[in-house]
Amino acid sequence: MNAPTASHSLTVRLQIQNQPGMLGKVTSALGKGGADIGAIDVIEVGKSTITRDITFKTSDERHGQQVVERLKAVEGVQVVNVSDRTFLMHLGGKIEVKGKMAVKTRDDLSMAYTPGVARICMAIHHDAEKAYTLTIKQNTVAVVTDGTAVLGLGDIGPNGAQPVMEGKALIFKEFAGVDAFPICLATKDVDEIVMIVKALSPVFGGINLEDISAPRCFEIEERLQRDLDIPVFHDDQHGTAVVVLAAILNALKVVKKKLPEARIVFTGAGASGIATAKLLMKAGAKHIIGCDRAGAIYKGRKENMNSMKEWFAEHTNPRRVRGTAGEALEGADIFIGLSGPGVVSLKDVKSMAKDGIVFAMANPIPEILPEEAGAFVKVMATGRSDYPNQINNSCCFPGFFRGMLDVRARRVNDEMKLAAAHAIANIVGKSELSEEYITPTMFDARLVPAVSAAVADAAIRTGVARKKKIAAR
Amino acid sequence: MNAPTASHSLTVRLQIQNQPGMLGKVTSALGKGGADIGAIDVIEVGKSTITRDITFKTSDERHGQQVVERLKAVEGVQVVNVSDRTFLMHLGGKIEVKGKMAVKTRDDLSMAYTPGVARICMAIHHDAEKAYTLTIKQNTVAVVTDGTAVLGLGDIGPNGAQPVMEGKALIFKEFAGVDAFPICLATKDVDEIVMIVKALSPVFGGINLEDISAPRCFEIEERLQRDLDIPVFHDDQHGTAVVVLAAILNALKVVKKKLPEARIVFTGAGASGIATAKLLMKAGAKHIIGCDRAGAIYKGRKENMNSMKEWFAEHTNPRRVRGTAGEALEGADIFIGLSGPGVVSLKDVKSMAKDGIVFAMANPIPEILPEEAGAFVKVMATGRSDYPNQINNSCCFPGFFRGMLDVRARRVNDEMKLAAAHAIANIVGKSELSEEYITPTMFDARLVPAVSAAVADAAIRTGVARKKKIAAR
Repeated sequence: MNAPTASHSLTVRLQIQNQPGMLGKVTSALGKGGADIGAIDVIEVGKSTITRDITFKTSDERHGQQVVERLKAVEGVQVVNVSDRTFLMHLGGKIEVKGKMAVKTRDDLSMAYTPGVARICMAIHHDAEKAYTLTIKQNTVAVVTDGTAVLGLGDIGPNGAQPVMEGKALIFKEFAGVDAFPICLATKDVDEIVMIVKALSPVFGGINLEDISAPRCFEIEERLQRDLDIPVFHDDQHGTAVVVLAAILNALKVVKKKLPEARIVFTGAGASGIATAKLLMKAGAKHIIGCDRAGAIYKGRKENMNSMKEWFAEHTNPRRVRGTAGEALEGADIFIGLSGPGVVSLKDVKSMAKDGIVFAMANPIPEILPEEAGAFVKVMATGRSDYPNQINNSCCFPGFFRGMLDVRARRVNDEMKLAAAHAIANIVGKSELSEEYITPTMFDARLVPAVSAAVADAAIRTGVARKKKIAAR
Repeated sequence: MNAPTASHSLTVRLQIQNQPGMLGKVTSALGKGGADIGAIDVIEVGKSTITRDITFKTSDERHGQQVVERLKAVEGVQVVNVSDRTFLMHLGGKIEVKGKMAVKTRDDLSMAYTPGVARICMAIHHDAEKAYTLTIKQNTVAVVTDGTAVLGLGDIGPNGAQPVMEGKALIFKEFAGVDAFPICLATKDVDEIVMIVKALSPVFGGINLEDISAPRCFEIEERLQRDLDIPVFHDDQHGTAVVVLAAILNALKVVKKKLPEARIVFTGAGASGIATAKLLMKAGAKHIIGCDRAGAIYKGRKENMNSMKEWFAEHTNPRRVRGTAGEALEGADIFIGLSGPGVVSLKDVKSMAKDGIVFAMANPIPEILPEEAGAFVKVMATGRSDYPNQINNSCCFPGFFRGMLDVRARRVNDEMKLAAAHAIANIVGKSELSEEYITPTMFDARLVPAVSAAVADAAIRTGVARKKKIAAR
């Protein structure tokens, strides 16, 4: 059983007989049930009973139910209500649209709306670039999904995807001051999605594609970036690539190896795998082998191929290594798992070169668990927050878009991604760097300023910025 | 020249010689120039000069420039800077997207985002109606335009239209607590617009169409409302219809006439004209004649027809009256102008029946001015805020959507519009009602609660509400 987490926390309202020792019975029932007790609040003290709200963390939904059953079994305790705190938090959604100014008088309105607004409209009509100064475009990002590849949940549709997109908008504002709005599309047709996002684009200064299934996501991103003059960034691909590269750069410092010499094995030849392999190669990696469940992908392989695996066959594994993923790992310096649990064994990991680096990033269950493999490699990282070295897209996208908006970038390019990766890596100072601290937490206050400055600078340097210096905010 | 307004207010920074009497020279220059002085602020007092910011209203852009020239001509005064306050107000746009909760800790994030959010996603995936409780859908409206008919400015495109849509979002939130987001589409293709709005709809609880040219707006609205299970409301049509009907109901009380007997002449056979005529007929009006510049529209007229005029020919003017708009006005009880200045003369207005009602709603210049016609009719109204009886869509749409969202309406219907019109009319109490007060101001605090309750009630009554009672907010 996993450790109890806030994401599965409950608040139960209990009516407890007002006798000495009763609260102790309740808390010991919770403790025996494996719940992690947080707040205990008194709601009402009656003649014979006392009503309390008790908040506790559980491991998962079933565990939560078991704990509630234990409470019901305590004599003198009545369970009045059980609230799932995650559901409570989501009531009514997580974001709102607010005015930046008050509209209390007719004068306010005559400037913000008719008749005054007409002059603003005409100023933009005569010079479309003025949309950047006179509308929300300068600070606003569309978080676009079709709900086809949401978290690890798969194709759950646009409504199902919306809570993730709202969460993303919440993070955008909280961490980087970016205004983001969820666009959850009830279509899976690539042509339609491209057409829709192009039509929507006037309002936005950037497009964050999210949770769109591969290989459709490639075409959508490419066509949009080709036709639009605002940046289009598929976070599942490039956000992952940036944070993995950042962590690899620091892990290599820890083990004192160089990226060009490092032998790197991927499992997972999906969108994030391709994007990560591409960015690692841009950064100098030369020895990459991509694997799927059938093993190493090589030029000429016939079975079980698709357009993404063809990319790996074409651009990686120059020596055409064959065999299982486990066999490919023999003597490798770096393992990057972007697949699922169980694709490699402990024996495979043990066969890696000295001072191995393992990024087992499948979520929620990594390709191999740190408690299993950690002792046999030098640097172990996962996508999870409950192990050291969490590799987390949220370290990238808020600052990345902040930087692009600050210089009104026209597009995303590799230089911006490389700059972001180096900026993230450099947050961890030489004296701080260790095998258990290769990548900063998303709560590190230095992160967004560093990433945004690096991205803005790279955009200016590569000529894709409308502004030639970073705007004061 | 119009009276000076806030929508053309300037703030000038002046460096003035520090001598007695200088400020008087400045203010008298402003006064002679016809500027309406507001705030005078001291910015800096130097040895020989004093720097002041002076804010004043002007009539229009040219007038503003003239006033600044007058200031420049004052000896001992240097104009350091001129700021247009309407432009200043628009810098960076008028709305923002904000989180409803803090995300300060990993626990916060684990509930609002991964991994906790996955349970919310799956709950909605299994029951799409849960989107109403667990996302922003319950309170969120898309303000959709293609920029083809913006205010009186015409087809100025999606970027040009955006300041109006942001202004609308601002009003939605300020007056009715509704979260609205601008969707400004870079396409004019009806099929594409319909497809796009349908695809976008999962996020929203309602669609407000805005500033889309006729007759395209009819097809877009009809097809969307047919296919979507959230309300679709074209404000230019139905907002206008509701506020005109409300004002007519009260004007008729003032003149003690009845709608079914009233002879009504329209000028302007556009989208708002048709919608208003339809709603008046639903409310009982029987004698309507629609006119264009060629005169009365009647069944069988061949010249200068289009689909909208065909509607008037088919459904109004049963006696097939011909002739100019002026001739149609002879003996009429009500004139509703939704066209442009100069379509009727004072002579025409004088030929109306006793106790005439004139709504001259062309903007910014009414069909006939109150100072000209006011003395010869009983009730005179315009669309402008600088005359009594301003008929203003903003009295309708915030409360209308508030009511629809409160009961999670599936669609808009005529009963809801009629209920809204009566609610607006009834704000003006019997004892308050007069020929100069037939319709409330949008700042009347009773307006949104009354309209939203009436609309919600009508939605429940007609079976288009998901909720059977009005949600507490």
